[in-house]
Amino acid sequence: MQNNRENNSCQNGRINSFTQVNQILREGRTARFGGEEIRVVDSMIDIIYPPVPFPSNRIFKALGEDKIRGMVWYHHELLLKTKVGKLFPANEEAFKMAVDKSADFFVEALGGGEVFTSVHGEPHLRMRHFKVPIDENDREIWLAMYKKTLKETGFPQGHLEEFWNWIEPLSIRMINRRTNMDAVKRHPWSEVKHDLLSKKEVQ
Amino acid sequence: MQNNRENNSCQNGRINSFTQVNQILREGRTARFGGEEIRVVDSMIDIIYPPVPFPSNRIFKALGEDKIRGMVWYHHELLLKTKVGKLFPANEEAFKMAVDKSADFFVEALGGGEVFTSVHGEPHLRMRHFKVPIDENDREIWLAMYKKTLKETGFPQGHLEEFWNWIEPLSIRMINRRTNMDAVKRHPWSEVKHDLLSKKEVQ
Repeated sequence: MQNNRENNSCQNGRINSFTQVNQILREGRTARFGGEEIRVVDSMIDIIYPPVPFPSNRIFKALGEDKIRGMVWYHHELLLKTKVGKLFPANEEAFKMAVDKSADFFVEALGGGEVFTSVHGEPHLRMRHFKVPIDENDREIWLAMYKKTLKETGFPQGHLEEFWNWIEPLSIRMINRRTNMDAVKRHPWSEVKHDLLSKKEVQ
Repeated sequence: MQNNRENNSCQNGRINSFTQVNQILREGRTARFGGEEIRVVDSMIDIIYPPVPFPSNRIFKALGEDKIRGMVWYHHELLLKTKVGKLFPANEEAFKMAVDKSADFFVEALGGGEVFTSVHGEPHLRMRHFKVPIDENDREIWLAMYKKTLKETGFPQGHLEEFWNWIEPLSIRMINRRTNMDAVKRHPWSEVKHDLLSKKEVQ
């Protein structure tokens, strides 16, 4: 592996990203080719996957296992009606297994004990999703359907912020197919809370 | 765009990458979920796209436009025999247009004047390739077929190193579909020169 190790030290505490190049391109700067000397274009990164605040066990204590499983099922039924649905197995039994596995993950991640890892091993969420291409728009849909789920299943208002602050950045980690040079769109709690909270809670 | 701007400053001159996580996972460290408090998992990057040394006009002066176009055609004919061939238009005329466009790029990039940008605009190579999914293995094939092309078309020995040092990192920039958490495989000149140079030149 020695040969494949990357030098990811940062020059002056900054590193160039394609999202910045995008900005430069919009400003109309042009490259010049084939001069007298070799011209080195800097190393580059793509998106930065933001920090993910994994929730405390407060959500699990409020909801319990059954309601968490119900929420994951509700979300997947919504996904089936979108183009993201095509990423799931067409076979009904295989689909059921996939959703149950996802529900196992949510139960464990929220503090319900090792119901996922005891059966499936370490989560490795990004790794497990490599087999299907997931682009920025698929993630938008996944997240929008979760928002709808939270609204329609009566998720406890006092725990919405902690849950949202987890799944919003978590969903970015599944993106493995890039189709543009934009920064991935963020959906901060401050932006979605008006939709999710009752009027009384927002005030 | 303000909302979408990423904070890509680096903590202590380092930034975490999935390729390092891969290493950590191999060491068997495990995550713990649903404790008493929120647990923040650090921000992360994927691969670092290495610097790209764009060649001087020395290669163009040695080869000339026709041989560069011939080389690009030879390369594409080889690609058609691989799974990467499926990424090109099936229609013969559309395929010819795609290869000619690629040849325009190579001619200009090597110093043959603005034959690409005058017709197609700025290269934006990464951007132009977003419409097709290109994974790590597709890039391996693209590069291997270039190696074969350089061998079989009699590319001038004295310019091979400069050309290879360009296309090897350049090819990494087209990857837009990740299928694993490994660092992208590098193929440094020191490793390929034994294949590309005649015995006399290697000594």
